Amino acid sequence: MKTVSIVGGSGYGGGELLRLLLAHPCVDVKQVTSRSHLGEYVYQVHPNLRKRTQLKFSDPAILESVDILFLAQPHGQAQHHIEEYAKLAPKIIDLSADFRLRDAAFYEKWYGEKHASPDWLSKFVYGLPELHRLEIGTADYISGVGCNATASNLALLPLIKADLLDVSAPVYVEIKVGSSESGAEGNAGSHHAERANVIRTFSAFGHRHTAEVMQEMGLNNISLTMTAVDLVRGVLATAHARVKQDVATKDLWKAYRAAANENPFLRVVREQRGIYRVPEPKILAGTNYADLGFELDESTGHIVAMCAIDNLMKGASGSAVQCMNLMMGWEETMGLEFMGLHPI
Amino acid sequence: MKTVSIVGGSGYGGGELLRLLLAHPCVDVKQVTSRSHLGEYVYQVHPNLRKRTQLKFSDPAILESVDILFLAQPHGQAQHHIEEYAKLAPKIIDLSADFRLRDAAFYEKWYGEKHASPDWLSKFVYGLPELHRLEIGTADYISGVGCNATASNLALLPLIKADLLDVSAPVYVEIKVGSSESGAEGNAGSHHAERANVIRTFSAFGHRHTAEVMQEMGLNNISLTMTAVDLVRGVLATAHARVKQDVATKDLWKAYRAAANENPFLRVVREQRGIYRVPEPKILAGTNYADLGFELDESTGHIVAMCAIDNLMKGASGSAVQCMNLMMGWEETMGLEFMGLHPI
Amino acid sequence: MKTVSIVGGSGYGGGELLRLLLAHPCVDVKQVTSRSHLGEYVYQVHPNLRKRTQLKFSDPAILESVDILFLAQPHGQAQHHIEEYAKLAPKIIDLSADFRLRDAAFYEKWYGEKHASPDWLSKFVYGLPELHRLEIGTADYISGVGCNATASNLALLPLIKADLLDVSAPVYVEIKVGSSESGAEGNAGSHHAERANVIRTFSAFGHRHTAEVMQEMGLNNISLTMTAVDLVRGVLATAHARVKQDVATKDLWKAYRAAANENPFLRVVREQRGIYRVPEPKILAGTNYADLGFELDESTGHIVAMCAIDNLMKGASGSAVQCMNLMMGWEETMGLEFMGLHPI
Amino acid sequence: MKTVSIVGGSGYGGGELLRLLLAHPCVDVKQVTSRSHLGEYVYQVHPNLRKRTQLKFSDPAILESVDILFLAQPHGQAQHHIEEYAKLAPKIIDLSADFRLRDAAFYEKWYGEKHASPDWLSKFVYGLPELHRLEIGTADYISGVGCNATASNLALLPLIKADLLDVSAPVYVEIKVGSSESGAEGNAGSHHAERANVIRTFSAFGHRHTAEVMQEMGLNNISLTMTAVDLVRGVLATAHARVKQDVATKDLWKAYRAAANENPFLRVVREQRGIYRVPEPKILAGTNYADLGFELDESTGHIVAMCAIDNLMKGASGSAVQCMNLMMGWEETMGLEFMGLHPI
Repeated sequence: MKTVSIVGGSGYGGGELLRLLLAHPCVDVKQVTSRSHLGEYVYQVHPNLRKRTQLKFSDPAILESVDILFLAQPHGQAQHHIEEYAKLAPKIIDLSADFRLRDAAFYEKWYGEKHASPDWLSKFVYGLPELHRLEIGTADYISGVGCNATASNLALLPLIKADLLDVSAPVYVEIKVGSSESGAEGNAGSHHAERANVIRTFSAFGHRHTAEVMQEMGLNNISLTMTAVDLVRGVLATAHARVKQDVATKDLWKAYRAAANENPFLRVVREQRGIYRVPEPKILAGTNYADLGFELDESTGHIVAMCAIDNLMKGASGSAVQCMNLMMGWEETMGLEFMGLHPI
Repeated sequence: MKTVSIVGGSGYGGGELLRLLLAHPCVDVKQVTSRSHLGEYVYQVHPNLRKRTQLKFSDPAILESVDILFLAQPHGQAQHHIEEYAKLAPKIIDLSADFRLRDAAFYEKWYGEKHASPDWLSKFVYGLPELHRLEIGTADYISGVGCNATASNLALLPLIKADLLDVSAPVYVEIKVGSSESGAEGNAGSHHAERANVIRTFSAFGHRHTAEVMQEMGLNNISLTMTAVDLVRGVLATAHARVKQDVATKDLWKAYRAAANENPFLRVVREQRGIYRVPEPKILAGTNYADLGFELDESTGHIVAMCAIDNLMKGASGSAVQCMNLMMGWEETMGLEFMGLHPI
Repeated sequence: MKTVSIVGGSGYGGGELLRLLLAHPCVDVKQVTSRSHLGEYVYQVHPNLRKRTQLKFSDPAILESVDILFLAQPHGQAQHHIEEYAKLAPKIIDLSADFRLRDAAFYEKWYGEKHASPDWLSKFVYGLPELHRLEIGTADYISGVGCNATASNLALLPLIKADLLDVSAPVYVEIKVGSSESGAEGNAGSHHAERANVIRTFSAFGHRHTAEVMQEMGLNNISLTMTAVDLVRGVLATAHARVKQDVATKDLWKAYRAAANENPFLRVVREQRGIYRVPEPKILAGTNYADLGFELDESTGHIVAMCAIDNLMKGASGSAVQCMNLMMGWEETMGLEFMGLHPI
Repeated sequence: MKTVSIVGGSGYGGGELLRLLLAHPCVDVKQVTSRSHLGEYVYQVHPNLRKRTQLKFSDPAILESVDILFLAQPHGQAQHHIEEYAKLAPKIIDLSADFRLRDAAFYEKWYGEKHASPDWLSKFVYGLPELHRLEIGTADYISGVGCNATASNLALLPLIKADLLDVSAPVYVEIKVGSSESGAEGNAGSHHAERANVIRTFSAFGHRHTAEVMQEMGLNNISLTMTAVDLVRGVLATAHARVKQDVATKDLWKAYRAAANENPFLRVVREQRGIYRVPEPKILAGTNYADLGFELDESTGHIVAMCAIDNLMKGASGSAVQCMNLMMGWEETMGLEFMGLHPI
């Protein structure tokens, strides 16, 4: 059994991580910190954990040494304390955005401020196993992934890997998201009376996760457009792009099937009958799956590539646990076996 | 044309009132106040009013004289300023809870504090036309109604009027409500990710609206149990009570039909076929209707009496406009003709 | 008072039309037909109409002559009976898809069957006042509009009118829709337990409404991608396109403001503060507004053009009533004054 | 490893059962039958099972012998074939209503028809472990439980066990339910456009599950009132009853805590702070927990006793697996460890 702690456990990402780690057969959770809920039982904030743990939120200033330290704080915290954290644990997985980008100038461009620990950027591996499985296996420091970036990256992954995309054409990614993306704190617009029933395009351009897609996909001419819909958990990314000349549906099938075969959490959903013919986030709640789909207009080369995930799982805490498994040499799917629910 | 102003226009009740008054053929809206949104266009807060008015929120400290003054502030404000308001307008309708109860001691019991203007309590008429139509017609000061109280009062009204209730048995009113009841400010629990999908009994006993039901129905042994469900607008009150011996379904039909015939906004919904067989709040959004229904177990005398309303309309601003119409001698339904939508 | 009848009144479009016509000051509803609900009160199917009309559904085979006949049947009916209908009424407005396209071959291509009355295609005017106001004013036969086509057409209208679009680039329209689009009959996938919480891309390419956008916008390289979300009423169309070189945000403001000034039901929504900064369908429920918005990436010329409507109003019955007003020489907005609700 | 099969696997109960059995460490699923989906992959109907099983739906007329046979057919099937099924498997768990009641006359009263196999009624044990743990441990035939009955029974269980209820007073149980209760087939009223946003009291009296509560709680004067709300999975039962004289809140605490201590899936939720202070079904989706709560008005003896469950888990398939575990001598919680999600 390895010891683990979570810094920042009262948010949605931290709570989801705790749920996964409590059920994980190889780890023992030592501490979960929260300044605002210090001393409360974690089940008072995350009511699903009632009768499953008697842990209380502890003070983030008093951290014990552990084998693996998870950082689940808001953006901009970890980069100021990474030296201290590194003394406490040989392995660190940071779910925030602080160490996702490899280039300090690129970070500054997208986040509007200088990075506090630019030397650490190169020590972290981007924590998406479908892109960096081998590096993750030997890494000590792993960054989390942006949920919208993950849906976008995985929607495009089979096309990029098989080199089917015409990169001279722009890629427009339309992303629809649930309300858990706005975090546990919420904001004026997340009040249920205002947020229910919405189709609200809160960002047409410039979402910060765009940077991760550019970096990981090697694409420059790409935009992410974000629309909030009435759902709690879930993201669907729909990428509109152009394939290379003469690429046909059968080539896409091959590329997508290869991706699904090589990755335990990727599935291709492209059915001719039934209700669930395409990737849909609702059935992924609580699972680590990324469901992929595509449609091609062979006459124009216009491809609609889709990826559905649970933003708190494959888009955050699930990928983090998957990375932990790889980093520790455990079965990649360990602790991530939940199948999801139907109906839901 | 009569001049009207609204003190407290950025909340949900104030916004709904403004919508109604802007469309009302006999009034002209002079001012709508808001401290927090001072100087903003009202359509920036209430986006449905875009292209319908160029009014901006004005300072509540600088009120002009008008024919009718509506007070739509949070509870506990109006009672401190009622003398000033009365100098500005000969007619006042206060939507808050400040002047709903007739007895200062009863007020103190339920609201936990002494009333600031107890002498004014007797000058106000409780603003539910179905109970006080004649008095409202000659009143200068009218109190608003609690939304949950209104659903409860109207569910019981036909039974009380026809004297069919066995008042020795307790009356348990189960009330299900949407999220607009929590007001425009919201709270931690109204964050969409927490509030969506709920069936949350936030008050088993002691809801303050209980006092209004006791006062208006003359019942002592009555409780209101409040449960939040996933909906924005709407209340369904379901009263479990016992009818007097030998009261049969046909007696109830007679009582309910009489109520519907005497009141333009009451309807009886009790169908044997179709989807909409019972009162449902969803189809009442934006309307001033109260839909009534009932089922009787003749073997035990147990009656299930239902009333559905839109909490912001019949439960607040709609009733206020209905009272204004009566007070001014206008057609009771004026400005309240919207039929509601199906589907919705 | 002009007499009107509705053929096909039990569906959602017919019900909405009936609601509007019952409240319209210049018309008198004679008949509303339904085979499946023959003899039932219309309020048993459309419960919002209770206490507002005692009309019963009549037999579509027994139609009386009227001044204006509305056809609200499923696709493929009207084209077989148009000769008969034309004998009953001098003015006809058909809400179905039967007479929307001007070219019989184009119809056959998109609908997969020969048109039954190709000679009649040229007699109908496409019923979108923002595009054909003058022709509608003198027309006898008006076709309805597709809801998704309308959202798409109005999103692009200011760009096309001001000639700002680079038509050499493809236009990808991402459309998110509510469940009322699937009609009153529904299907396996519209069962609440399957349909709730969805983000379901049910059509990546080839939606029939594409034909109307091609015809009305004069665009060939355009696709509509349809995604169902959890909402009853509402459509948001988001068009990704490229503007001509050197077109800047200020040019777009000018074009959009002009469109809003020339059309009573168009509004531009592009705010820097508040919750409602962009077009959102939820606040349009029951109204005839089309809210327009846009964002431009000046560095690439990529424009995100948005239009939100209520699919049953501006996307169907509301536009039909607006056309009737124009055709009869009445005020264009008559009977369409409802402002919509906030919150909802 | 024991072999199991499911007769009737395309419904919601059967699908949930399959999900649980596929993950159960001690069983091997042989067959899942469906007439309407014969030959299809089970993941085409239950999309959460994609990549988890290659099982196809088989013909219910061609069943192999197994160790444990689960029957998940609609009501009224199992009682006609129980003799045949008993030849195929030594242990049977029937999720339908066919063998829940012990008395044939009582069955006929509530189900309106004679029971086809009355001799078998006494061979079955009612499958609620919290009431019949010991008998289940030695049983061969176990009946499933009604979801609404289970929520009601568990809400009242601590009161009945501790003998705190004044049984001379009526018990009114108000039950709010999600749309998965209407089954995978749905009906006109379950179309999303009609079912979304509802607070719809579809049964004031006479719901068949009442019979199970009468039988199991030994209460005669009890009614169940059913209201549909906007949710997919979940039931909240709220029982209004009267406690015996001088029963105080501390006595209730004792009774509820005892129940929670004796039963692994019962929890008491009664917090003074935070968002989740009372039992709520939403956080139970996919779990086998029953969350209990209560409030007492000590001045009147009026108790509001609550129980929240996932209707497809504790209210159906979860309890069935719990019974299997007990019957086979396995750990009671085996395969039922999922904690549930927050937020959701």
